Amino acid sequence: MSQYRILIDANDEKGLVHKVSSVFYGFDLNILSNSEFVDKESNKFFMRSVVDGDVNKKELTKAVKEILPEGSSVNVIEPKKKNIVLMATKELHALGDILIRHEAGELEANILAVISNYDTLESLVNKFDIPYITISHEGLERLDHETQIIETINSFEDVDYIVLAKYMRILTPRFVEAFENKIINIHHSFLPAFIGANPYKQAYDRGVKIIGATAHFVNNNLDEGPIIEQDVIHIDHAYSWQEMQRSGRDVEKVVLSRALKLALEDRIFIYANKTVIF
Amino acid sequence: MSQYRILIDANDEKGLVHKVSSVFYGFDLNILSNSEFVDKESNKFFMRSVVDGDVNKKELTKAVKEILPEGSSVNVIEPKKKNIVLMATKELHALGDILIRHEAGELEANILAVISNYDTLESLVNKFDIPYITISHEGLERLDHETQIIETINSFEDVDYIVLAKYMRILTPRFVEAFENKIINIHHSFLPAFIGANPYKQAYDRGVKIIGATAHFVNNNLDEGPIIEQDVIHIDHAYSWQEMQRSGRDVEKVVLSRALKLALEDRIFIYANKTVIF
Amino acid sequence: MSQYRILIDANDEKGLVHKVSSVFYGFDLNILSNSEFVDKESNKFFMRSVVDGDVNKKELTKAVKEILPEGSSVNVIEPKKKNIVLMATKELHALGDILIRHEAGELEANILAVISNYDTLESLVNKFDIPYITISHEGLERLDHETQIIETINSFEDVDYIVLAKYMRILTPRFVEAFENKIINIHHSFLPAFIGANPYKQAYDRGVKIIGATAHFVNNNLDEGPIIEQDVIHIDHAYSWQEMQRSGRDVEKVVLSRALKLALEDRIFIYANKTVIF
Amino acid sequence: MSQYRILIDANDEKGLVHKVSSVFYGFDLNILSNSEFVDKESNKFFMRSVVDGDVNKKELTKAVKEILPEGSSVNVIEPKKKNIVLMATKELHALGDILIRHEAGELEANILAVISNYDTLESLVNKFDIPYITISHEGLERLDHETQIIETINSFEDVDYIVLAKYMRILTPRFVEAFENKIINIHHSFLPAFIGANPYKQAYDRGVKIIGATAHFVNNNLDEGPIIEQDVIHIDHAYSWQEMQRSGRDVEKVVLSRALKLALEDRIFIYANKTVIF
Repeated sequence: MSQYRILIDANDEKGLVHKVSSVFYGFDLNILSNSEFVDKESNKFFMRSVVDGDVNKKELTKAVKEILPEGSSVNVIEPKKKNIVLMATKELHALGDILIRHEAGELEANILAVISNYDTLESLVNKFDIPYITISHEGLERLDHETQIIETINSFEDVDYIVLAKYMRILTPRFVEAFENKIINIHHSFLPAFIGANPYKQAYDRGVKIIGATAHFVNNNLDEGPIIEQDVIHIDHAYSWQEMQRSGRDVEKVVLSRALKLALEDRIFIYANKTVIF
Repeated sequence: MSQYRILIDANDEKGLVHKVSSVFYGFDLNILSNSEFVDKESNKFFMRSVVDGDVNKKELTKAVKEILPEGSSVNVIEPKKKNIVLMATKELHALGDILIRHEAGELEANILAVISNYDTLESLVNKFDIPYITISHEGLERLDHETQIIETINSFEDVDYIVLAKYMRILTPRFVEAFENKIINIHHSFLPAFIGANPYKQAYDRGVKIIGATAHFVNNNLDEGPIIEQDVIHIDHAYSWQEMQRSGRDVEKVVLSRALKLALEDRIFIYANKTVIF
Repeated sequence: MSQYRILIDANDEKGLVHKVSSVFYGFDLNILSNSEFVDKESNKFFMRSVVDGDVNKKELTKAVKEILPEGSSVNVIEPKKKNIVLMATKELHALGDILIRHEAGELEANILAVISNYDTLESLVNKFDIPYITISHEGLERLDHETQIIETINSFEDVDYIVLAKYMRILTPRFVEAFENKIINIHHSFLPAFIGANPYKQAYDRGVKIIGATAHFVNNNLDEGPIIEQDVIHIDHAYSWQEMQRSGRDVEKVVLSRALKLALEDRIFIYANKTVIF
Repeated sequence: MSQYRILIDANDEKGLVHKVSSVFYGFDLNILSNSEFVDKESNKFFMRSVVDGDVNKKELTKAVKEILPEGSSVNVIEPKKKNIVLMATKELHALGDILIRHEAGELEANILAVISNYDTLESLVNKFDIPYITISHEGLERLDHETQIIETINSFEDVDYIVLAKYMRILTPRFVEAFENKIINIHHSFLPAFIGANPYKQAYDRGVKIIGATAHFVNNNLDEGPIIEQDVIHIDHAYSWQEMQRSGRDVEKVVLSRALKLALEDRIFIYANKTVIF
């Protein structure tokens, strides 16, 4: 007996739950949990089922697809550790939180490597027996630098997610397209938003009472991909912008780790530049 | 075309979603939303579907029951305003929040009356053209006092919920049994808990950094019924116990109003002294 | 014996606490609480003391001013109910929360009137025996409409604060200047921010996981005045934009009421387009 | 020029701020920040000042003491890294968070050693070049086991704090007295509270909607010492007790790290079994 996670998205029509659950029943699958959602605006149906039984994945996928409308997507996943590559620059809070959770056995993931444009975090990462690959951007054109990173990532087999744990360089559309819906980023968020250099200094000058963080998939619009998770902490006038930044790190690391956990557990659907999360 | 909320709880067995959705499909119902949960500890299956279509409620109920295991419960509900009776003593924060939400049209409810053991809140309630019934406990045995309240409540037809919006008298088992799973209460909650008189003073003496509130159904163990909703706010050493109490009221009113909303929308299952909330 | 709140802001220099507390001591005042803050960026010193004693306010103010650097501000306030005017349009959640708190005696305020451009909320406000003044904007130029409102507000004596409890019209610079640092507004806030029509629909389309609210003083840059208070609630993909709006109201009313309380208790300093709050 | 943190507690009387700030002024100290609090119930005055200047610490202490009432306490501290010993058992989340923050340079602390009754976490701790000392309790009387731990701690010079990062054995009064006001513990907290074995299972059975954690100093009443910091996270019916425990770890580690930071920055006063935190 194995456990499977079955993710379905389809154009909505009457009877989908009935039809899908009939197929499951026909395959003698036991539903352990089941979540459905219909987005009325886009008329899209989403379903995530965790089942146990003993099936041929291809056959099950085919059987479900047959009863769904044209253009539906079905994904039958056997839970196992996903392969992830972490990218960082110099800050260790977000990276460190993932390393410790990995060490604690909390993450369904193999960390294949940490890639950075600096060697600052190398000694930390090496403590955890994880390869650290420095690819300096110095003296390189942006595209050449990225080519090296892309080739490094592609030298691994089956990379499921690339986690930007405070990787502080802008990615080009080519990079983003190479790993569509696979790149998870964390960035600070403020009310209101601030654009440009040193947003913490801007937020300080503006006197915000809240500091937030947003974890999201990366698409071609910088910081505008589908949002996975957000949270905030309260601050007050007595925080310097450096203290705001320090406190911001605490919310950043928590939000990124939560988002990563959701991804590793196959809980996220991406559509129309947003997410459905079960 | 009408909308129905269908609430099912049953002992879990393979194929329940399939069987139930087949019945829905046979009745030509369109599922708008669907939530399921299996409690593995107790082997209980819970399902709440919102559907639209045009059915005879009795026939649908019967058809669903037939395919479920013995002892299952099926509830087909047409959304409409529920009838509620509010009970209060002297404090108006929790009561006031419900009255304002009712006035704003936010609650799917008719407020039949406010019953209190004091006349303190009468002028407020009358502003909203809601009957205020003072049933003083003075000079009465507890059971006699309660008998008057029970009779008053029973003088209304079809009372769905009795909301204790800071009603400060202990209810006897007889009262609780008379309105099983229909009484919603709000009370302050602390970490750790404090028993006895003036819990805010005790919490102050203990130096807690958090004040909470719990909304729950009332059963025979005082303050120990199935929990619906909880929340907390942060405080610090500078709060006197009176200020703690004042801040506590803000979280009490929010938590009670949220719990009431969940009940009015038929989102709560009660079992094993706890709740499943969809 | 009376209680006084003494608010001081000054350019920082060595010995200010010493000098100020010497004056208090000379006036035989007992310090009940004392908060200080130095903003290092602007070299500004802020102090709020609550004292009891028996003094001539003018003499105390003069004595404190004498020992402070040129250009300092000293405000000796005897706590009493402040006079406030509420402005609203059609939504009652924020207005209703203030009315109920006022009724409960929680606010150190007299509500002089509610002014609205519609008569929608009149019956609610009248329940609380508070004057409701409808000043319709229909058929009027913006400036003429505002002139009527300004004249109405000025017809009251000593208006301390004007609270925009979801007043949905843009104020002109003339209005804002007429009541500088006296206008408190509430508005929804999102991560990221959305500009233009129906921000809730935009936030829905963007798939945000958090809805926030910001209470702030109004200055000439719309929605950009000094921030007093902010908070958020968590939502998920299952919220329609109408449900997001409904939930947003809950955080709006809480944040506005908290901000108003801070203002009424003389806890807010405004400087450099931000606030220091003790 | 050095920076000093000056912590004062005294029985309250008129003029304390004046007298203390006069002494600071006489020593030519510049006040960078200043916090005061009077607990009216106990008539206790607390003050924490951060100043810069150039003084003899003993002379300053003596001078401040002279102007304070009998029985006052004055503590002039030059900020420097404090020496801490961590204690753990088998879980690494709380310990790991402290190690990563230490590595990131976020903590004003030297970690002298990690002491555990198991060797489970040894390889993790060794990665960070921190001594790991296993003192097994097997085959030992409780007092003998503790004697070994006490001697180990006393073998270090100047231990400022002992942090119980999920150390799962009960400490005897002798241990607690040996390190009075120096032991910081983290434990899960629930509304309501649960006593006895497996509180997460109890909380699950009770259907709580909130999981909390409390960091506190340890005194002779187990889990009842002065509270430093508390927080909660929201859960729902879908959490198994194992998932509740997993989520509980996230709040435990955050709350413990915050409490430790407050202690390292000399922001905590302990009195009457509670804390004042500036």
